[in-house]
Amino acid sequence: MSQKAHRRSLWAWGTEADEPSTARLKAAAAAMSKRFGASLAPGTPARLSDVSLRASRIRPGRALTAFASAATYDRAGHSYGHSFPDRVRKFRGDFPNPPDLVAYPRTEAEVSATLDWCYSRDVVVIPYGGGSSVVGGVEPPADADRVVTLDLSGLGAVPDIDVTSRAARIQAGAFGPAIEGALRPHGLTLRHFPQSFEFSTLGGWVATRSAGHYATNHTHIDDFVESVRMVTPTGVWESRRLPGSGAGPSPDRLVMGSEGILGVITEAWVRVQARPRFRESASVGYSSFESAAEATRRIVQAKLWPANCRVLDPEEAEANGVLGGGQALLVLGFESAEVPQAARMREALDMAVDSGGKVIERAGDESGGAGSPGPSERWRTAFIRMPYEWNALLGFGLINDTFETAVTWDRWSEFDRSVRAAVERALVEVCAGGSVSCRFTHVYPDGPAPYYTFSGLARAGGEIQMWREIKAAATEAVVAAGGTITHHHAVGRDHRSGYDHERPQLFAEALRAARRVVDPKGLLNPGVLVDP
Amino acid sequence: MSQKAHRRSLWAWGTEADEPSTARLKAAAAAMSKRFGASLAPGTPARLSDVSLRASRIRPGRALTAFASAATYDRAGHSYGHSFPDRVRKFRGDFPNPPDLVAYPRTEAEVSATLDWCYSRDVVVIPYGGGSSVVGGVEPPADADRVVTLDLSGLGAVPDIDVTSRAARIQAGAFGPAIEGALRPHGLTLRHFPQSFEFSTLGGWVATRSAGHYATNHTHIDDFVESVRMVTPTGVWESRRLPGSGAGPSPDRLVMGSEGILGVITEAWVRVQARPRFRESASVGYSSFESAAEATRRIVQAKLWPANCRVLDPEEAEANGVLGGGQALLVLGFESAEVPQAARMREALDMAVDSGGKVIERAGDESGGAGSPGPSERWRTAFIRMPYEWNALLGFGLINDTFETAVTWDRWSEFDRSVRAAVERALVEVCAGGSVSCRFTHVYPDGPAPYYTFSGLARAGGEIQMWREIKAAATEAVVAAGGTITHHHAVGRDHRSGYDHERPQLFAEALRAARRVVDPKGLLNPGVLVDP
Repeated sequence: MSQKAHRRSLWAWGTEADEPSTARLKAAAAAMSKRFGASLAPGTPARLSDVSLRASRIRPGRALTAFASAATYDRAGHSYGHSFPDRVRKFRGDFPNPPDLVAYPRTEAEVSATLDWCYSRDVVVIPYGGGSSVVGGVEPPADADRVVTLDLSGLGAVPDIDVTSRAARIQAGAFGPAIEGALRPHGLTLRHFPQSFEFSTLGGWVATRSAGHYATNHTHIDDFVESVRMVTPTGVWESRRLPGSGAGPSPDRLVMGSEGILGVITEAWVRVQARPRFRESASVGYSSFESAAEATRRIVQAKLWPANCRVLDPEEAEANGVLGGGQALLVLGFESAEVPQAARMREALDMAVDSGGKVIERAGDESGGAGSPGPSERWRTAFIRMPYEWNALLGFGLINDTFETAVTWDRWSEFDRSVRAAVERALVEVCAGGSVSCRFTHVYPDGPAPYYTFSGLARAGGEIQMWREIKAAATEAVVAAGGTITHHHAVGRDHRSGYDHERPQLFAEALRAARRVVDPKGLLNPGVLVDP
Repeated sequence: MSQKAHRRSLWAWGTEADEPSTARLKAAAAAMSKRFGASLAPGTPARLSDVSLRASRIRPGRALTAFASAATYDRAGHSYGHSFPDRVRKFRGDFPNPPDLVAYPRTEAEVSATLDWCYSRDVVVIPYGGGSSVVGGVEPPADADRVVTLDLSGLGAVPDIDVTSRAARIQAGAFGPAIEGALRPHGLTLRHFPQSFEFSTLGGWVATRSAGHYATNHTHIDDFVESVRMVTPTGVWESRRLPGSGAGPSPDRLVMGSEGILGVITEAWVRVQARPRFRESASVGYSSFESAAEATRRIVQAKLWPANCRVLDPEEAEANGVLGGGQALLVLGFESAEVPQAARMREALDMAVDSGGKVIERAGDESGGAGSPGPSERWRTAFIRMPYEWNALLGFGLINDTFETAVTWDRWSEFDRSVRAAVERALVEVCAGGSVSCRFTHVYPDGPAPYYTFSGLARAGGEIQMWREIKAAATEAVVAAGGTITHHHAVGRDHRSGYDHERPQLFAEALRAARRVVDPKGLLNPGVLVDP
């Protein structure tokens, strides 16, 4: 459906132009061989021409042919999200359970037509935004007879911008760059930059409660949603644009995080803001992760609301090449469209230093331009590049993945200790060793949102099963130690065991009851969040 | 159930000690006679000894006798909330439909026992906090056979304070002053001060999505809730304490605003904060409400997050005795436990003046102590005293009431014009005239929360019917012009017509389906929010 030169890669993060070369794959295998003291041979990614899919079990008929495709590229390309096992299977060209058809509706009427068509034939429907799910949120259920994936990318416009109220009506299939491109001429920005920004959509962010740019105060997309419009098998669900309301339980808050089981989000009004003109950034080094964490607790409890307030433990700081010598790194940033931020940065740095930190770098309006990139800029670059970097780490048995959570401060130290211990133990048992590191992506007055990265060496070919064992240990440890199964990666199918333990049982039953109202047959994305 | 000297008045806001004297009632009637050019005779409030109730239709039996009462004081005192028609009926001693029994459980086990007892006998249960509802949220349904009101005031403790995470576990029946009293020794505060603060409870705030002290950023109690525990007829619903989560739709957000139909909230963990040490306040005068409104839009869109950012239109400013001469008033306040706020106040005042304002008063750490009370302090005092003041305005036919909403900025001017016109027209038709005024209680980047006050003279004895006509006009105008039926007063029974128009129909059906999970017989507070 898209130009060859720019179309999405069948397996790598990004477009086909982002696929690593053979030389790059070789170099990566060599580097990892050195790191793990092993002899790793680079793999070869599957090509589209090698992929042979099960025949489609659906004949779309007249209603859908104008905007649906059963081509191998479309079906294979919508088989997975971008989790570790997804990446491994895509690299291998392993697509045993693709959707039978991919619909690309261009209007809300075509979304409704797709739902109607599927509903009258008992066909499962998977709403699909950018396909960046890392929790099995978009894969066809193994036990489904017939599956249509409903790709929203045809609804990618920003039809209304309300400069006075600083809000915009954005279609669900709009990707991050398109949203920013539409807002920029008005001096506005949504400033929602999840790591998946380039290849994820507004509808996906809302359906999965994505977290974005802001490390404090308003972190999740939830805080920016003014109203939502959703098409369901039993009708349209649309809330009123309101800056705030106390009228009953929030309808939008039931849609946010519903991961496709309540309907297909077609558009939302979201709060946008003036583009920042004043910026301050700083990096502070600490002798331990613990003291850096304490600094963020103090800053966020003082309600200084920095835009950036992220902590890298010594392993992360070193692995990202931003700092060495066993130091933890605190990255602080303040920004505003209206008022200089130097005084706020000074207040935060006073607390950061008072907690044992040493200012490494400072940039902004007061201290002059950034000059050569410092640790905070290097970290930001590494953050955005990470999924691309990982493209080259496939094919030779390396397990590398992340998981994330949030936990209250009173539990944090013990939480971190027990989660690291559990994952390290699993890595020893499964991979004969590996590494675990942590950073804070977001910080709240009552607790941090820690984000763990782990890696280890598996038998090539055995990665997925071995990953499952480590992931299960991580999930169990996170939930047992009082965290949430996800701060912003969503639940999908992969986090069900943790989620089922975490949410109130009666809430799960209430959610299932609510679902039966809008999807009486349980055809929408079955298997995520709750049993149908 | 409480000491005579401190017990709640049967009709007035506050305790029996707060009931106005005969002289006070006489003086108020004289003042209103002058204002309206009428000859108004003061009324006489009903005394408990005059009240004769329908016999209770319930024999509580052994399970409830230890903590339930069918005494006239208890039953009459739980017949109403504190809306205008409630106040009129209480003043008159008009209690045709009291609950049959009032249960005062002292433990969660007794809450469960009450629910079990009622459930096995098909008796309606009304969860009751402080009884400050102004929307008919706690009155027994007219068509119910038997009603038990479940008064949570026996669960009034603050059992846990987590100083590290700045959070506290608070029982649902804890009143505002008790909460602050428990937190103060730890240097902490919830800082949730609705006008009803003295006579409303944490559970009531959560159930009705109360809005409090903060005029910007975190306004509703929703933002402060970390987890909720609720007893339902089918079991306990309890969420996990988390600083943030993206795991499915938020369970707490379905409880918040549920107004008793999903269960009885017994306790919640809420986010608290260090008591402020640095404070700045200022008042700014404007030649029009419109220019003051524009100033708040600019300040809140700049994300300066003042604690106070309220606007009084010229009528309100004059009526509250804080300013005269047709000026609108902007009241600004900044506060912090950690850092001086003078610079932030200067930033806000620069914008306020740039929007055409003139600084009338400034107080705080930079400009010295407050000295004699200025407009902002006088306004705050008037705000807290308002419900007491209104005690003396009963009995001679005066209709005085408020309604509140929120609306996006793009609609605000036209909204204000059409709502005032509709209410003024209704006042002319029903009362041959009256007054309407407005203030902003909270302000968001995408719109204000306007709060209207209206008054007019009715025939004594005809107040309630005449009020209903004006209220209906206001409700219709608010919803037609794009506002919400309530920003923080809740829906109850009185706002159903507006609410039914506002919320997505499918959401209402989803909420009813969720309710059937926890309350299959529909016995919990039937009639609020949705039909059973």
